[in-house]
Amino acid sequence: MTASLLDRRSVLGAAYRLFYAEPLALVRGSGVEVFDVAGRRYLDAYNNVPVLGHAHPAVVEALTRQAGLINTHTRYLHDTILRYAEALTATFPDPLNHAMFTCSGSEANDLALRIAMTVTGGTGVIVTENAYHGVTALLAGMSPSLGIGTAPQVRTVPAPDSYHQSGDVGAAFGAAVAAAAEDLRRSGVQVAALLVDTTFASDGIHVGPVGYLDAAVAAVRAAGGLFIADEVQGGFGRSGKLWTFLHQPGLVPDLVTLGKPMGNGHPVGGVVTRKDLLDVFGARSRYFNTFGGNTVSAAVGLAVLSTIQSEGLPDHAATLGVDLAAALDGLRRHAVVGDIRGIGLYHGVELVTDRGTKAPATALAKAVMDEMARDGILIGVCGIASNTLKIRPPLAFKAPHVTELVTALDRVLTRLA
Amino acid sequence: MTASLLDRRSVLGAAYRLFYAEPLALVRGSGVEVFDVAGRRYLDAYNNVPVLGHAHPAVVEALTRQAGLINTHTRYLHDTILRYAEALTATFPDPLNHAMFTCSGSEANDLALRIAMTVTGGTGVIVTENAYHGVTALLAGMSPSLGIGTAPQVRTVPAPDSYHQSGDVGAAFGAAVAAAAEDLRRSGVQVAALLVDTTFASDGIHVGPVGYLDAAVAAVRAAGGLFIADEVQGGFGRSGKLWTFLHQPGLVPDLVTLGKPMGNGHPVGGVVTRKDLLDVFGARSRYFNTFGGNTVSAAVGLAVLSTIQSEGLPDHAATLGVDLAAALDGLRRHAVVGDIRGIGLYHGVELVTDRGTKAPATALAKAVMDEMARDGILIGVCGIASNTLKIRPPLAFKAPHVTELVTALDRVLTRLA
Repeated sequence: MTASLLDRRSVLGAAYRLFYAEPLALVRGSGVEVFDVAGRRYLDAYNNVPVLGHAHPAVVEALTRQAGLINTHTRYLHDTILRYAEALTATFPDPLNHAMFTCSGSEANDLALRIAMTVTGGTGVIVTENAYHGVTALLAGMSPSLGIGTAPQVRTVPAPDSYHQSGDVGAAFGAAVAAAAEDLRRSGVQVAALLVDTTFASDGIHVGPVGYLDAAVAAVRAAGGLFIADEVQGGFGRSGKLWTFLHQPGLVPDLVTLGKPMGNGHPVGGVVTRKDLLDVFGARSRYFNTFGGNTVSAAVGLAVLSTIQSEGLPDHAATLGVDLAAALDGLRRHAVVGDIRGIGLYHGVELVTDRGTKAPATALAKAVMDEMARDGILIGVCGIASNTLKIRPPLAFKAPHVTELVTALDRVLTRLA
Repeated sequence: MTASLLDRRSVLGAAYRLFYAEPLALVRGSGVEVFDVAGRRYLDAYNNVPVLGHAHPAVVEALTRQAGLINTHTRYLHDTILRYAEALTATFPDPLNHAMFTCSGSEANDLALRIAMTVTGGTGVIVTENAYHGVTALLAGMSPSLGIGTAPQVRTVPAPDSYHQSGDVGAAFGAAVAAAAEDLRRSGVQVAALLVDTTFASDGIHVGPVGYLDAAVAAVRAAGGLFIADEVQGGFGRSGKLWTFLHQPGLVPDLVTLGKPMGNGHPVGGVVTRKDLLDVFGARSRYFNTFGGNTVSAAVGLAVLSTIQSEGLPDHAATLGVDLAAALDGLRRHAVVGDIRGIGLYHGVELVTDRGTKAPATALAKAVMDEMARDGILIGVCGIASNTLKIRPPLAFKAPHVTELVTALDRVLTRLA
């Protein structure tokens, strides 16, 4: 009766996509290892959602314990959501000491924008050229990487890309944001927010030098808009700090959005922001999310955050990230490797057909990703031309895994490039 | 360090709201009973999310088992999501045999509208006067019950209310939808969808006679739009059938949205629709929801649906619903009871200050709800004037609970009215 695994379109429809030329059917996992139906082991160097590692016992324990007691919503009082909100907001600089909870990063970005639009009275939003911010109707209109265009009140700017741009990427990014805000103003649209993934993942992973966001943030604020740091991909320790924006001294976003790793796979997202913004939003509208911040989600979120902190995973990501960067650097001997960049345990390897022109080696990148999967190692691709290999493992990644990953990548590049 | 439970605004902000004059801090539950921090027991006659009952062992087991194996997303193959999608779509009439999965009813309604807008090329949406369809920016603009107005491309129509309207409510509803579609057309807006909660819960619970939706659905289709049945509140057996729209012979929605009870509290939502609509949507855009349809959510959803079916909960709701309606009917001896209506285990008791004018007894309804909570029984209020008592228990509700509920309601009405 069951549709064959590969024939899933017959029941899930035409909008779903699969990874890899030979899609994988994963049935169990532990740490950074996953196993398919045939028992074959893969090293997971791609999935950021299981940030603690697959099937982590602290998450299973929290799920089981709280689901066995009660799973209710935020219209009743419960201690766990408060303990979680306090533990979470304690990791942010003042005045970011309020949290709201959702079921996904999409709902978090959507809520942050609703708050920003309510507070500013504007609807204009500035995002990067190949941004991805989520699946709601609002966010699809400001996620150009989906390939369906952008909404009329959205303006796009190039990401601060130190490989393809010359000069001061921060200054250029700031000028582009200022011009976008001015273009919105001329169109009669008040800017509500600059919304950026602080790792610029869909744009190819660009975490720039100290201060590289300052001009852009100043420009949007000068135009009356807010700065929303989308930490859905970059948050929860991967960068070497708990939040990627913390690498930028003095930078305090107006709103920060959270998702993917927040529940280690359990559907949890959130917005961290200032009291004054929620006072305005709360006076205008109530907010109730049936599942957002429910007792089980709060217990799981608290378990994930506590484990990240008790295991020192941000420091681990910082330390091992240096080793990862050093190991990846050896791949520069392959002429197709145009650039290697990243932070902590989040790196991109951009493949080009010509180092002079930096023309994207898109087909090669896909072939490398597929061949790596055949060799038992999971990575992805990202970037405007989908030519940047995306390395983003669970933070249970250890030194031997770095060696295994980079050795395999070296071998595959030798084979294919 | 922890904010006192009641002082949660200091960390959650101003947009959250609590139930009851004396808010409850619930710490455990079982079946239809919940218990507060002091150990006091409450009969839950309100929460539809824990459809099987609080902390149901089948849900805890599915969560624990699958979370201990692996929690991955839909870019890998997995048998469970297919078995769940097949089991789910098997409960719908042809040609509704495709399913997509989200984390919430909000994400489901948002996705259904994106599909409808893509397929029809329109943006216009028709909803009822006091509708609530979710928290995303798109849905907030078509949820007038939030009190923040509606988006420009939205038109509202009165719900088919057999208490306040005279004559054929279905014909009136159809005429109102036709007029709204025509008004959109005159404004240069193509209608994409008529979106209705098939229990009209926010409008006060109105499940009308056979055929009462037919004229409205015909009208929106004649104008080139689709009919989206929002079964987020009414779905999963409460009405006496698995889906409330199944009470309408021959009525086949274009899209059906699911949420709240779908995971018994686990964040799961979904859209069930036709192949041809997803072919158009899928050709235009890919859809990926990080947590939607993940292996744990699919396992939980399958466990909930299987338990609903194996325990015969729709039939139970139908049978016990007749007893509930009969017991509630005795309350008509109170002059403040203007109307009693509903279906299965979903009933409303509308309170009025005057049976002739049907003027709403809004303050009394809130007082009755609060006094019921003091007496240990949880109910809610709904309706345009918030004067309809909302009775919507977990389907683990049994005959003695009906007696306990209605006896208490009789006592409280005697005390307060």
